[in-house]
Amino acid sequence: MRPFADDAFHAGNSVLGRYLDALVAALSGIDAGEVATYIPQLGRADPSDFGIAIVTADGRLYRAGTWDRAVTIQSVSKPFMYGQALTELGRERVLASVGVEPTGERFNSIVLDEQHNRAFNPMVNSGAIVTASLLTRATAEAGAADMLDLFSRLAGRRLDIDAEVFRSEDETGHRNRAIAWLMLNSGMIEPEPDMVLDLYFRQCSVLVNCADLAAMACTLATLGRQPMTGDQVFSPEVTRDVLSVMTTCGMYDYAGQWLYDVGLPAKSGVSGMIMAVVPGQIGLAVYSPKLDAVGNSVRGIEVCRTFARDFGLHTCTSALDPAAAIRRIYGARDVHSLRQRTGAEREVLAAVGDAFAAIELTGPLYFAAAERVASEASRQARVAGTVVLDFRRVESIDAAALDLLSRIPGLLGSAGSRVLMTEIPDRLAARLGAALAAQGGEDALGTPTTEAALEAFEDGVLGAARVSGRADAMRLDQAELFSGLDPQDIVLLENAAASFSYAPGTHIITQGEAALAFYVVARGVVSITIPVAEGTRRISAVGPGQAFGELAMLDGGLRSANAVASGPVVCHAFAIDQIREIAERRPRAYATILGNLARSLSDRLRAANVQIGTFE
Amino acid sequence: MRPFADDAFHAGNSVLGRYLDALVAALSGIDAGEVATYIPQLGRADPSDFGIAIVTADGRLYRAGTWDRAVTIQSVSKPFMYGQALTELGRERVLASVGVEPTGERFNSIVLDEQHNRAFNPMVNSGAIVTASLLTRATAEAGAADMLDLFSRLAGRRLDIDAEVFRSEDETGHRNRAIAWLMLNSGMIEPEPDMVLDLYFRQCSVLVNCADLAAMACTLATLGRQPMTGDQVFSPEVTRDVLSVMTTCGMYDYAGQWLYDVGLPAKSGVSGMIMAVVPGQIGLAVYSPKLDAVGNSVRGIEVCRTFARDFGLHTCTSALDPAAAIRRIYGARDVHSLRQRTGAEREVLAAVGDAFAAIELTGPLYFAAAERVASEASRQARVAGTVVLDFRRVESIDAAALDLLSRIPGLLGSAGSRVLMTEIPDRLAARLGAALAAQGGEDALGTPTTEAALEAFEDGVLGAARVSGRADAMRLDQAELFSGLDPQDIVLLENAAASFSYAPGTHIITQGEAALAFYVVARGVVSITIPVAEGTRRISAVGPGQAFGELAMLDGGLRSANAVASGPVVCHAFAIDQIREIAERRPRAYATILGNLARSLSDRLRAANVQIGTFE
Repeated sequence: MRPFADDAFHAGNSVLGRYLDALVAALSGIDAGEVATYIPQLGRADPSDFGIAIVTADGRLYRAGTWDRAVTIQSVSKPFMYGQALTELGRERVLASVGVEPTGERFNSIVLDEQHNRAFNPMVNSGAIVTASLLTRATAEAGAADMLDLFSRLAGRRLDIDAEVFRSEDETGHRNRAIAWLMLNSGMIEPEPDMVLDLYFRQCSVLVNCADLAAMACTLATLGRQPMTGDQVFSPEVTRDVLSVMTTCGMYDYAGQWLYDVGLPAKSGVSGMIMAVVPGQIGLAVYSPKLDAVGNSVRGIEVCRTFARDFGLHTCTSALDPAAAIRRIYGARDVHSLRQRTGAEREVLAAVGDAFAAIELTGPLYFAAAERVASEASRQARVAGTVVLDFRRVESIDAAALDLLSRIPGLLGSAGSRVLMTEIPDRLAARLGAALAAQGGEDALGTPTTEAALEAFEDGVLGAARVSGRADAMRLDQAELFSGLDPQDIVLLENAAASFSYAPGTHIITQGEAALAFYVVARGVVSITIPVAEGTRRISAVGPGQAFGELAMLDGGLRSANAVASGPVVCHAFAIDQIREIAERRPRAYATILGNLARSLSDRLRAANVQIGTFE
Repeated sequence: MRPFADDAFHAGNSVLGRYLDALVAALSGIDAGEVATYIPQLGRADPSDFGIAIVTADGRLYRAGTWDRAVTIQSVSKPFMYGQALTELGRERVLASVGVEPTGERFNSIVLDEQHNRAFNPMVNSGAIVTASLLTRATAEAGAADMLDLFSRLAGRRLDIDAEVFRSEDETGHRNRAIAWLMLNSGMIEPEPDMVLDLYFRQCSVLVNCADLAAMACTLATLGRQPMTGDQVFSPEVTRDVLSVMTTCGMYDYAGQWLYDVGLPAKSGVSGMIMAVVPGQIGLAVYSPKLDAVGNSVRGIEVCRTFARDFGLHTCTSALDPAAAIRRIYGARDVHSLRQRTGAEREVLAAVGDAFAAIELTGPLYFAAAERVASEASRQARVAGTVVLDFRRVESIDAAALDLLSRIPGLLGSAGSRVLMTEIPDRLAARLGAALAAQGGEDALGTPTTEAALEAFEDGVLGAARVSGRADAMRLDQAELFSGLDPQDIVLLENAAASFSYAPGTHIITQGEAALAFYVVARGVVSITIPVAEGTRRISAVGPGQAFGELAMLDGGLRSANAVASGPVVCHAFAIDQIREIAERRPRAYATILGNLARSLSDRLRAANVQIGTFE
């Protein structure tokens, strides 16, 4: 069973599956053309056969009609062998033997590029025979085995050769034999022509159905990575070269009109198969054996034409929207660090919000997207001393984007702004690090999270403004929770409090435990965390004068979060029992404390609502 | 002054501007080629001139070197005249006179497509003369004026003709005159050849600098919409046809190699200008007057090659990521409507969260993105009875995506799930509505907001579970805020309460007013709103048994939000003065009320934190 994604075999019930069914029904009436007969096996094809398959970049299959009829691949094999030759021998060596110019001649033309002593291009028979000559092995069997391995990797399942078709091609391919000997005569090929032709005839005899061929086409759409198996069969560079040649030379003497009408890299074969590639999106395969005068499947051409028209898939139109690369931009005014701040601190921070800007990037970063990011970063840096580029939602960065992005820290740094690149996904870290290092910009990676960058920025502002409470001097009457109490109530609380010191990382509170006490921080910072799928998530942090675990006053019950010492921490702890005692004796004081608690919750709720508004 | 976006003239200080400066410096050493001399004015060009300009899809200009040298556009005019002919006469008429196949001949070849009695393609002189013949007017002046208007719209500023070059072309263009007469002889052109050649020589004599030409190229990159002015000069279909012909025929007898090496639609001119188009991204123009043997600027070719290689801009590679179309998916479990629910209601809702799924879409929706959306909607519909597609962040929907999306409601409806399309931006509403109507799916637009869909879903679930309080029976001891009070305290409160009825839309509380009372809803729903840039934003809603304005108990002070009757509403109002009196007399009861308030705030804060986690 091939590893298609889960929707694969429900595809008939899908939007696209139904479209393909309708397309088969609509075009089945076309009856023009003739089934190829140059070898007897092709002549036996059922002229009414008509199948279509599409494979998407994430490996979903859609199919209609006789999509599962296995026929020989014929000339559709040529782009794949060309890709393999480029992979094994490199561009320069291959270009020496076969060019990339369309010929304007028939596919089995015997005309060669005399000026460069090479075949015109790898999509005509002469060029394909040269390509096969570059891939022969010590024995015919080894060559055939490697070829079959390659095609199987491209299709995502084991393929086989139709032995009868191979024998028939081998026995009747006189014209191809003539081409091969002519090229040997001109020094265009080196190995013994029979070996070369053996491989060439075998590659044409590989059996594929539309799903196989659509998967092979999709491997070219996704820069050489097989969409179901993830196997990187060709490099992106090789894939691009293969698609280039398919674009200009894939449809025989029809190149300009094909690009004009359909606009997709494609390749047809004499068995009636056509494959077409929508770069980045899908591979398409059609099978219908009746051919037009130049050897392309009549219905196949019509499917490609209709599909490209209905779905606007032409290579010269682009759906890219560089603006989509920037998900949102926010300042320290809109989003605060998880560190809870006092009222005085919040006022100071509100006044300097523009000095910090975070730009959240998303999706794949390609040239125009990165250009937009660079431009936006420059714009923000006119006001902001710290510009954060948050990469957490970046899918991929291509070479163009990497180059542009790596230059940003240096450029804005020389203009006085600090650029931090945060939340780098593991899969991107090495490439981004190397690119930054090449530009002397590795400092941009010094702060791993946006949260840390935001908290550090706030701390810097508050330190400069000297509004933050001095930790070593925290008295209980300075605690937010106890604000407005009479001195005698403060004394009661001081008598009830027990002071504890915690080493960094200590779990002061653990989620799920009974809530028997609450705490006021005297020194240090305590992180409030909750368990999530990937570990724990910090949802808040409290510092000197602020309380945690205080909801225990309301319910008792169980702890809903952890409290962990971020560094060395000193806390005043209050047993709930004792607080209840004080509440009984001093109900007004208790109401003041609850009022303070409600006010703090209300402030935090308001900040959370602002943040939700910013995030939406 | 041309209307470039704000960064335009700071471009030298930008990442890309610096790259271009470096590129000019690196390639200035290339000195091969010869300046064209077939008319004397071209021969006077300074061979050391070398300029580059780029215009991005959102109208930013980057430039380097002698980018502002104005020279005649020459053959780079051909694609634009071809686009205008397609616009005025349609594809069929134009194709009757000029084909789309590359010739393999020189640009000034006299060879014609005898088989179809037409010129081979509009990028060689014969085809361009035919194209000009289709655009002649009653007088030479009128033809020239229309042509200049067109070029000016493409460039985004007023352009002029170099009269001296025009006269010189007119006097010395014997070969072009011969081509024109030959075509008249074959019936390929109709108007008087001198009129046609007058227009042709004038179009070649329009003065442009690199910034003009990059803007013109960018108009082709952005489907015919001028990037600075927003003027839709060509339709997307015409633009695509122009780019197709540029791809195969733009670089003279070099088509295959050009697509292989650079892979961008491009056009060169004998004055040393080259323009290249990166569909969806940028327009590029290079000026350097020394030409190679086939008539292309030597440094220009090298700039295109280097730029395409450095930045991976080949047409056959795509940076599209269909997965990016889905911003997030959430259920009723993760995100709640703004309607506040009681503890019992929350428990019921938590148990049915999977029955509702919202899929937030983002960016431009093109074929593969819409296919991904359709597939994800089907997957969600296996469990969810209501599937919301939220369009608020959708930039654009192309024809392919529109077709696929409009089929989703019918397909999933027949499988028993309801699809709602919400938050449709105004600019998309008409097209989406028409497409849905064509599929009988207009019901999908019945609920305009995701919030309304979510609240309706919750109401349905709660109605079925019969847990929601019956509004007509609400007693004060059922109010959340008064939970746990003694009966005698309830009596005190009942005595303090005044009952009011409000018509729909009444502002019960207005932001900024003094907070003198709080309210408990007896019947109906009250929306809590805050002013935002675009009007007001609903941040919460409360129903029977729930309180609003209760923070007044803590501070007095001013209202931070509005409270508006969503329908007919009955409330119990409590003056803060009276509550303070009760607090004095019954401090324990007051502490209970504050405890209830703190618990409610704590619940809402926890929900807000979950939502922030979901949104991030």
